[in-house]
Amino acid sequence: MDREQLSELGQQLRVDAVRAADAAQSGHPTSSMSAADLAAVLLGGHLRYDFDQPGHPGNDRLILSKGHASPLLYAMYRAAGVIDDEELLTYRRRGSRLEGHPTPRLPWVDVATGSLGQGLPVGVGVALAGKRLDRAPYRVWVLSGDSEMAEGSVWEAAEHAAHEHLDNLTLVIDVNRLGQRGPTRHEWDLGAYSRRLHAFGWHTIEVDGHDVEAVNTAFDEARSTTGRPTAVIARTRKGRGVAAVEDKEGMHGKPLKDAESAIQELGGPRFVQVEVAKPAAVRASDLLTARPGELRLPRYEKGGDEVATRNAYGEALAALGSARGDVVALDGEVSDSTRSQFFAKEHPDRFFECYIAEQQLVAAAVGMQTRGYVPYASSFAAFLSRAHDFVRMAAVSRAGINLAGSHAGVAIGEDGPSQMGLEDLALFRAVHGSTVLYPCDANQTARLVAAMAEGDARSRGVRYLRTSRSAMPVIYGPDEEFPVGGSKLLRSGDDDVLTLIAAGVTVHEALRAADLLARDGVPVRVVDLYSVKPVDEPAVQEAAERTGCLVTVEDHHPEGGLGDAVAEVFSDGRPAPRLVRLAVGNMPGSATGQEQLGAAGIDADSIVAAVQLLAEKVLVR
Amino acid sequence: MDREQLSELGQQLRVDAVRAADAAQSGHPTSSMSAADLAAVLLGGHLRYDFDQPGHPGNDRLILSKGHASPLLYAMYRAAGVIDDEELLTYRRRGSRLEGHPTPRLPWVDVATGSLGQGLPVGVGVALAGKRLDRAPYRVWVLSGDSEMAEGSVWEAAEHAAHEHLDNLTLVIDVNRLGQRGPTRHEWDLGAYSRRLHAFGWHTIEVDGHDVEAVNTAFDEARSTTGRPTAVIARTRKGRGVAAVEDKEGMHGKPLKDAESAIQELGGPRFVQVEVAKPAAVRASDLLTARPGELRLPRYEKGGDEVATRNAYGEALAALGSARGDVVALDGEVSDSTRSQFFAKEHPDRFFECYIAEQQLVAAAVGMQTRGYVPYASSFAAFLSRAHDFVRMAAVSRAGINLAGSHAGVAIGEDGPSQMGLEDLALFRAVHGSTVLYPCDANQTARLVAAMAEGDARSRGVRYLRTSRSAMPVIYGPDEEFPVGGSKLLRSGDDDVLTLIAAGVTVHEALRAADLLARDGVPVRVVDLYSVKPVDEPAVQEAAERTGCLVTVEDHHPEGGLGDAVAEVFSDGRPAPRLVRLAVGNMPGSATGQEQLGAAGIDADSIVAAVQLLAEKVLVR
Repeated sequence: MDREQLSELGQQLRVDAVRAADAAQSGHPTSSMSAADLAAVLLGGHLRYDFDQPGHPGNDRLILSKGHASPLLYAMYRAAGVIDDEELLTYRRRGSRLEGHPTPRLPWVDVATGSLGQGLPVGVGVALAGKRLDRAPYRVWVLSGDSEMAEGSVWEAAEHAAHEHLDNLTLVIDVNRLGQRGPTRHEWDLGAYSRRLHAFGWHTIEVDGHDVEAVNTAFDEARSTTGRPTAVIARTRKGRGVAAVEDKEGMHGKPLKDAESAIQELGGPRFVQVEVAKPAAVRASDLLTARPGELRLPRYEKGGDEVATRNAYGEALAALGSARGDVVALDGEVSDSTRSQFFAKEHPDRFFECYIAEQQLVAAAVGMQTRGYVPYASSFAAFLSRAHDFVRMAAVSRAGINLAGSHAGVAIGEDGPSQMGLEDLALFRAVHGSTVLYPCDANQTARLVAAMAEGDARSRGVRYLRTSRSAMPVIYGPDEEFPVGGSKLLRSGDDDVLTLIAAGVTVHEALRAADLLARDGVPVRVVDLYSVKPVDEPAVQEAAERTGCLVTVEDHHPEGGLGDAVAEVFSDGRPAPRLVRLAVGNMPGSATGQEQLGAAGIDADSIVAAVQLLAEKVLVR
Repeated sequence: MDREQLSELGQQLRVDAVRAADAAQSGHPTSSMSAADLAAVLLGGHLRYDFDQPGHPGNDRLILSKGHASPLLYAMYRAAGVIDDEELLTYRRRGSRLEGHPTPRLPWVDVATGSLGQGLPVGVGVALAGKRLDRAPYRVWVLSGDSEMAEGSVWEAAEHAAHEHLDNLTLVIDVNRLGQRGPTRHEWDLGAYSRRLHAFGWHTIEVDGHDVEAVNTAFDEARSTTGRPTAVIARTRKGRGVAAVEDKEGMHGKPLKDAESAIQELGGPRFVQVEVAKPAAVRASDLLTARPGELRLPRYEKGGDEVATRNAYGEALAALGSARGDVVALDGEVSDSTRSQFFAKEHPDRFFECYIAEQQLVAAAVGMQTRGYVPYASSFAAFLSRAHDFVRMAAVSRAGINLAGSHAGVAIGEDGPSQMGLEDLALFRAVHGSTVLYPCDANQTARLVAAMAEGDARSRGVRYLRTSRSAMPVIYGPDEEFPVGGSKLLRSGDDDVLTLIAAGVTVHEALRAADLLARDGVPVRVVDLYSVKPVDEPAVQEAAERTGCLVTVEDHHPEGGLGDAVAEVFSDGRPAPRLVRLAVGNMPGSATGQEQLGAAGIDADSIVAAVQLLAEKVLVR
């Protein structure tokens, strides 16, 4: 397309953005208008994408990091002929695929955006997959706003992209000078962005974002730059083309007041149809297409040496990686602690060191799963909270990612509260469609690690595995099965006065407590509720019916964890049993792991004391 | 102190770090040894600090961002004469103040560290307080590791510090080349850090971190640099001084194997006592010492115009700012949405624009409260999840901060799930010592905004207020009181068949449902549970006793929110009522707010249907 055609296309995108927002009486037309020429040049001259085959292995990827400019994206889809005008005008209506911010309900959207500063980190993940896994020549284009450059996650990504020499990644920054509530820090100082990115190792190009020829040349330069990623830093005007809103404050996130005259000012509706360039003929990666080999999970001797579940995680993950080429691992510079190092050693080509940058860690996993890979990303459970907004958005992206948080709870001991995952169960349970697993034993861990890879990506959702630092007894045989949504009945008898429900480290405390109580003539049932979400409702219900009282014991703060998972079973109006929650209600200091469990009131002695108190109060049979 | 004395002091700090970790058989001596000379020069020549008066308004502040190097900090305290040798050797033991990572259990520690990348952002908050609030000449020193420079939060802080010209802030980077599991990205390339920070607007100095004279000169230069912050980038060797561990991989986070010979190699124990320079004579800020004026909260007419609770937040906060000089507000570039703009307009000197950098936003609040201010930081509820690790650490820091999350739940409407706070109640409830408030009405909001400032900082903890986007009826009069931990009984009668428990937007849906049900001859009780944590146990218990069935209705995912808060009341073994949880179980798309409430099954009609179903099943009277 020539200069005039591209400019016409840019105007069409503006008009369509204005029309969509006007129909919805909601949305962000001005943020779309600033980037319209950038989008036109990209669509008309650079993007290689087969809209009929969104899964084509050679397709470029476009991530609209400034997701609020969704009208622009949808206008591009109309120009590409994959949505019609009627659908465009369903923007933001109930049931429409054209949501306020893009989501993968549209087949051409790989990841949801709308929480700013996420597009580049996720794009880094896709570009890493392109370079190191797919080894395919596609390019990742990230269209970002200028305001979102303030997000630290962008700089985690900038560092990572340069370090990995991701010359298949282009960041286009729409520097329209205005954020939501006023001017950005750097307004139109393109050099401010350029200097920063250059210092981080990027190639940078400053350009007038409304000069389609200049933009075209910049994109050419980006595509031909090798050895490092390129940022095209484009000076633009918010609301470009409509005097009533152009470069004016207070015009963010609103439909134009007089859309009809704005459309006239923009030259009226157009019907430019773009023949988007097709991708190169590329075969899908062997890693994705090869038939899985036999899975030889590590086997631990029941009653043998004690093993930390984090060790079993690493060993099982390495084994899974041997059986399946699509399994990849990522870590946040703590692989010696999380034990993902075992995978790294055996499969260095599929291991991704993300350094201490948990947002980039999770974002890379999200990016890689868009290419069909099955990522396992690990850090300390406490530090995964750093990436919570990315986890939340992963759910909106319908992403299938596996996360492993080590060093759960007070049981870690001396390091103290900053290193203890004590909120992670609450955080992960509250994520839509998530799975939360918390094993107590090495064989159980190994099986659950394998289970996390099962199913297709969308059904997988966000899966979280919580592992423990210290060695613990092996209480299950290597052939035992642990379905997601299941539980294990470890002690039971006809006279049980109550049920102890535990997971992870507290299973062992509960078993010890049960033994002590049995000696005192107080028989109790013990359930290992390793699947915290989904929870084994029938088993919990049965325990309630048989014993009438459920005591949950968890190495987690009292809110949102195991106790809540059990309580939720009785949240549909059926009669509830007596419930007792033992959890970490204190602020820990330093102490040994066993001392910590005692101080928090979740060790065997504390459980015994609690049960005896319940018995005294005749709250249990 | 002269060169030799400073070097001696550095060796003493190393020896004491080795001794402490040896006594504990745990901890990070090698990470302490790399920074020992930096610490010696700081303590012996630059820090101005009255250890007898940690609250002295002129005191410099030292934040050990690399919190795992706590043995170094404790060795500094010993050298300053404020802990004795006996206490030093209690390091990491149960009950000791000398925790694995520093916490404010020690009077000289303002904020807990140990989650990397937090020291600089918090330091920015303290330095902002120094410049713009206290207007005092103290300096903030942040001692950081090199690994943690990968955290995005560090770059949010770097940007913010330069933008605010914080020349009272010095970042000292201990570039010891080795992270936890191996080399850092940039190893000893000091220029890599220098170029990046310089591009962000910092003055940078590269130095040999074991040359005490060079370090001394660098600190002098940092102190005399005006208009921008300074980073002293110091090349050091991890484990410096002990050949068995110096610059060796695999030596992170472990006591030295042969501590005795290591101590000999370091020249044996020393007893250098440092006379730390006293701070300048400075009066506490008038903002902190002035007597509060009369609080004139906004008053809204009961039954009058509908008002969004976010508007009431902004108006109440502005009023609170007029009454109290110690109240400050911060926002993440969405003050027009959160309505903190009302405060900004009235009190521009005490408003801090943090741009789209939520980690820095929360960190700045944490920093400011160390200086005695009462910060209110606001963003969308969804985006505060970006800062969750900072919130978690704020609790470990015993910080008193107020956070306001706007745009709660599906009720926001068309913008879609990326903008909806649907996990925030779970996230904030799980934080130790937190308070979670969720008003449904403008007068209630105003009262709760004022209540968040009450009490002393440590008793305050992390307080979270959830506000809504859309205007809602004013159902309370302006003189009604809303204690934290309370609730409001809105409908009740002798024949109520169940209780609807709601908060925020669902209170209005519950009231409508109650009216509809009453018309059908099904009377129900309605409770406004505005204090989600702590929860009004007596009121919930009474509702259970009176009606036997509690139906919670919340604009939040089912896990960890209102339903859990109510269930927790019955987690001590007492008989529980029937519980029903209505919450957002779906993944929303775009639609109007009212359509969203319907789709999620939490609008009045859905409540009516749920109650009728319960009645049919004879689960309720």
